[in-house]
Order: sequence, then C-alpha cells, then structure tokens
Amino acid sequence: MAAIEFNIVARDGDARAGRLMTVHGEVPTPAFMPVGTRAAVKAMAPDELWSMGYRMVLANAYHLAVRPGEELVAELGGLARFMGFRGATLTDSGGFQAMSLAALNSISEDGIRFRSHLDGAPFMLTPERAVEIQERLGSDLMMALDECTPYPADRDRALRSLELTARWAERATRARRSATQALFGIVQGSVYPDLRRISAAQITALPFDGFATGGVAVGEPAEQMREVAALGASMLPPEQPRYLMGVGTPSDLIAAVAMGYDLFDCVLPTRNARNGSAFTSAGKLSIKRADNTRDQRPLDPRCACRTCTTFTRAYLRHLYISGEILAARALTEHNLFFYGSLMRGMQAAIASRTYREFAAGTLARMAEAQASTAEG
Amino acid sequence: MAAIEFNIVARDGDARAGRLMTVHGEVPTPAFMPVGTRAAVKAMAPDELWSMGYRMVLANAYHLAVRPGEELVAELGGLARFMGFRGATLTDSGGFQAMSLAALNSISEDGIRFRSHLDGAPFMLTPERAVEIQERLGSDLMMALDECTPYPADRDRALRSLELTARWAERATRARRSATQALFGIVQGSVYPDLRRISAAQITALPFDGFATGGVAVGEPAEQMREVAALGASMLPPEQPRYLMGVGTPSDLIAAVAMGYDLFDCVLPTRNARNGSAFTSAGKLSIKRADNTRDQRPLDPRCACRTCTTFTRAYLRHLYISGEILAARALTEHNLFFYGSLMRGMQAAIASRTYREFAAGTLARMAEAQASTAEG
Repeated sequence: MAAIEFNIVARDGDARAGRLMTVHGEVPTPAFMPVGTRAAVKAMAPDELWSMGYRMVLANAYHLAVRPGEELVAELGGLARFMGFRGATLTDSGGFQAMSLAALNSISEDGIRFRSHLDGAPFMLTPERAVEIQERLGSDLMMALDECTPYPADRDRALRSLELTARWAERATRARRSATQALFGIVQGSVYPDLRRISAAQITALPFDGFATGGVAVGEPAEQMREVAALGASMLPPEQPRYLMGVGTPSDLIAAVAMGYDLFDCVLPTRNARNGSAFTSAGKLSIKRADNTRDQRPLDPRCACRTCTTFTRAYLRHLYISGEILAARALTEHNLFFYGSLMRGMQAAIASRTYREFAAGTLARMAEAQASTAEG
Repeated sequence: MAAIEFNIVARDGDARAGRLMTVHGEVPTPAFMPVGTRAAVKAMAPDELWSMGYRMVLANAYHLAVRPGEELVAELGGLARFMGFRGATLTDSGGFQAMSLAALNSISEDGIRFRSHLDGAPFMLTPERAVEIQERLGSDLMMALDECTPYPADRDRALRSLELTARWAERATRARRSATQALFGIVQGSVYPDLRRISAAQITALPFDGFATGGVAVGEPAEQMREVAALGASMLPPEQPRYLMGVGTPSDLIAAVAMGYDLFDCVLPTRNARNGSAFTSAGKLSIKRADNTRDQRPLDPRCACRTCTTFTRAYLRHLYISGEILAARALTEHNLFFYGSLMRGMQAAIASRTYREFAAGTLARMAEAQASTAEG
C-alpha cells in the first residue's frame, strides 16, 4: 500500500510530468519545493507561496524537533496547518544537518548524536526517531534518516557510509506507522558510480514510496554532480517519484528534469535573495552593484511578479544597501516566482513534448544574456 | 494659494473628519501615517499598506538626502513613485533626528550641522535646504525645519528654542517654490503653556498650509503630553489640517482626534511589531510570552487581517523566538491593520456624530481586557 499516489501524466524523453496526490492536495510535478527549515520560508507569507503555484514546501524535522518540538506541531494540527500553508509538506530528517554541523555531531550505528545548534543540549536522532518525529509533524513526504556522505570521501569511507544508510533505511521502513504519509529512501555512494549502483540496489529493494538521490551538491564539481544525478535517476523505479535533494540552479533543474527527476529543493532562490542576488531570464543579477544605482528597470522585464511590477532596480538597491527587510522580501518573492514559473514552463513543455526546445531556448537566453553582460 | 486643499466633511465636538486633496490622491482624515523613514515601511509591501486603507506614508528627508540622495529620488519620479506607493507622502525634515542624535550634531542660527549617521561625513541642514530637499523628494506634505526641543528643557532653553524655530519657519516659507507641495509649520514650546502660546502665535502667523504640534512624546509624562497636545490643538487655525507629530498609542490617538487633530505618525505599530508586541482590541500582547506557546487563537480574534486569519499565537511565537523575518512581517501587518481600522472607526464615528461613544467603548474594551489579563 502506497501512502501517496503518483501519476505520471506525460513523458518527453526521460522527463515526466505528474501528479503527486497527498492528503494535503495535489502537487503537479516536476516541482520545486521552497525551503522552510523552521516551518517558515524566510520572509514569505504562505498565501504568497500558494499564489505563486507552490503546492509543497520543505521543512526540517531535526530543527523542528529541537524547537518548537514535534509534539507542539502535532497539537496545532500538523506542519502545514501550523505554518498556515494550504498545501503539502515534505520534511527532511536531519541527515544533512549532521554532515553540515559535523564538528558538533557524532555518528554511530544507532544514529546521530547531535549537540543542539541552539543550546548544546544532546539530541539523539535514530532512524526510528526520525520517522516518529516526522509522523508527529504530519508531513506528507517523510525522508528516511541517512548519512549524507561528505565530499570529498574516499571509496572506503563512502562504502561504509552507504552501508550504514542502507541499514538505517531498513530500520526506517520498519518503524513507520502512518498510512497517509509517504516515506522516501535516499541513495548515497558519493561520486563513485559503482557505489551509487550498490546503494540504489539496496535502497530500492526496500518498501519506500519514493526515492531520492542524496549526497549531491555537497561541494563536488558541477559536472560531477550532474553525472551522479543522471546515473542516480536511471537506477530508480520508473513509476515512483524521484527526488534530487539540494539541487539547484535553474540550469541544474532543467538538466535534472530531463534525467527524469520529479522533486527538488534548494536554498538558492531564498538565500541568494537575502544576499541581494536575483535569478532572471537574463541570468543572475546582483542588486548591490553600482550600475543599478539609477536603473529604472525592474529586476527582470519579462517577469510579472509583484517585485517586478512594483519596484525599480534602483529602489531595490537602495533597500538592500539600507538593510531594509523589504529587500529580502522583494528579492525572495521574485526568485521564488522565477523558480515557480520555470517549473510550470517545464511541466507544460513535457505535456506538449517540446521539452528539448524549451530547455535549449531557456538555457540559451540565460547564457547569451550573461555573455553580453560579461562583455558590456 | 494653498498647495493642498483640506475639506472638513464632518464634525463631532472638536473632532473632525476631512479629506486632504494632494496630487497623489485623496487622504481621508483623521489619518495615521505609517513610518517609512528610508522610503520603506519596514517589512511591508506598498500595496499591502494601500489595501489596509493607508493613503499617506511618512519618510524622512534627512535620511533620504544622505542616502540615496534627493536627486536620485527626483530622477526616479519622486518619493511615492520611488517606493512604489500609489498614495501620498509626507516628509519630516530632520529636526527630530537632530535632537535624537544630539551628541553627533550641533545647532546654530544657520541650521543643524549633522555628522552623518552612516559615515560621519558633515551634512548641513538649513531651513532652506530642508525645503529644497523635500521639494526634490516630491513629498505632498513637507515639514519646516524646527528645533525639536528636548525634554526636559528649562523655560529659558525652551524659549530660545521656539524663537529659533520661528525664525527658521519664516525662512522656510520664503524658500518654498513648489505650488503642488504643502508646507507645514511646527509649534514648539516644550511643556510650558505660555511658551506654547507664543510659538503658536508666531508659527500660525506665517503662510503655512497646515500646522503641527511638535516636541511632544519626547519623554514627558503621558498626561503632560496630552495637556500640551490639547492646548496646541486649540491654538491652531480651525480650517487647516492639524498634525500631532510622533503620537502615539491607540488611546493617545483616540484622545488626540477628540482634540481636533487630523494627522498622526508614530513608530509604535511598526517598531513594537519587530519587538514582538501586538496591538489588539484587548490591549497589548507580547508574543514571546510563554503563555502563547500552545495558544491556538489568532493575535486578535476580532481582527480580519492576514496575520489573524492565517496564524496562531503559538506559530507567531515560534517565528519570533526563531528570529524569522516572517515574525516581523506578520506582526507589523497586524499592527498596521489595527491602526488603520482604528482610524476608519474614528472617521465613521465622527461622521455619525457618535465619537464619544466610540472612544469610550474602544477604550473600555482595551482597559477591561488588560485588567483581566493582569488578574489572570
């Protein structure tokens, strides 16, 4: 029995467009999930995310277990309701946090022992506990606890890591209780194709509802990331949802959808926004640059978002330089609008079997504009 | 020739409801102006302010002259257009900043010599320069440069201060050129009734389009502030708009409208929001308090704002404790919605000649709720 239903409604090459059916509604795929680590997508109101077409957002189980605690979220109606979002939610387990805060944490067969990033208090995350937290949070898609193998890792280290992830994955599948929440397994194996194959075989043998390629976009070269991602997609069951974790730039997403991935998350549109960087149809734009000082154009003349229909680059630069909260808001809204439009564009292109043309056209426009910017 | 037209459409006792006609549209009064010092109301999008009924916002001429410079704002179409606001704007001159940053600044007959709060660079603000800056900014209501007398000030100091303000006021009226921007004079005199009378006589003798009671809410006891404000209102021309600067709490506004003031500004709703404090129909609410931890109610069950129709107190507390930008946004939106509703309630009560009942009922509800909170 699958906790969620996934229907592929169109294919174009390896790319697919689908519908993920959750108890919190339908999620059209390929879908990008804005990152709301602590049950809030930074600077955004949940109805704005909905208006931009987002039907699923991501939060972090470890962060929420530390604060405000999964019991409180459960008492308040579960994650989506807690954050006032009408759509679905996915929770990451905390494996990535174990890697990124490695100095604070230690990993054993049992699980990950965290020192809380808030107060240093010990916090033990086992595969069973990770499922329990996520079931209480009430997310629609739960992720099995993995060891997110750091980069670089030598073969031995990567092999031990994927074996541990496999044992944890098996424990996670035994721990789950919820009939309405999906549980996804995560493939590791670092940048080694043979190890990726071993991990994929182990993880896909388990009764998961969907599968993720993990341990990518953790510092390896961009080209290697894409090779690993492509190999990863090819080894996942064709009828189940495929999630490429932590990816990526607009061009990464275009490439990954062509490989057959359905779900994505990344901090880039939100974090870059807070750092003054906008994604546009003409490539990236740094709002703090002096050449925006008197620029009366919107961030992206092709964009219909509130930021682009209201503000000039000159004003946004003033806001950013002045440290106004509105700068973070406005750029985040634009970037998420841009990502949302990109995903809808890909969905439509797959449906009309013009994905190759859509991808080539979009990438060419970005590259061309960046080249003329570099010259100019 | 008045640069703006002000029509009083209803009276109830000394309270009046009116329409201020500017080239950027009509402003119903009594009106509260959200503070957008640096051409942005912190955390708010301009269309949100408009939706909440705000038709005029305040910015600071000194701050904008330092950054991004009034020339740039002029080049970009003036203040309202620069910040993407469809309504009118009022600019304060910088007299208040001279007082609040007194250690950095020095005052002479000529004007105020600032050390820029940004980089320490010298910046000379004269009455003429203050008008020039504001004319270039293109605000609809400009304020004459005053010396905002600090509190406490002895009689001699207060007298010298108001005399200087009167000489500066006269210079400001001679410096103005714009036929579409109103210029307001500011009455000083600290807490001394006889000095307030002298200042009012001096300032109202000059060809201003409206008048402000200044130098209040600068540290004096609340009761004294209200006495000074009431005396101030009684000395201002009855047919011209009256502005009580820097005031105040909801109950201050209710009292001041009864005195016959038309315009208000205050950082309270926005600054308090960022500090986790909400204004509600049941009085003030501190969101960080532990008793909000599991509270499923909205900030204010009587409120129809986005924050109150979307978020629980428990979630808002989580956002605030977690330092999420959304906490500042959500509380600011609620507080400004509350202030906007309060002003509309006062306008309607004046129109129906039920201001006394409206004021008594609103104040009683807030006081009663605060008392029961204190007991509970």
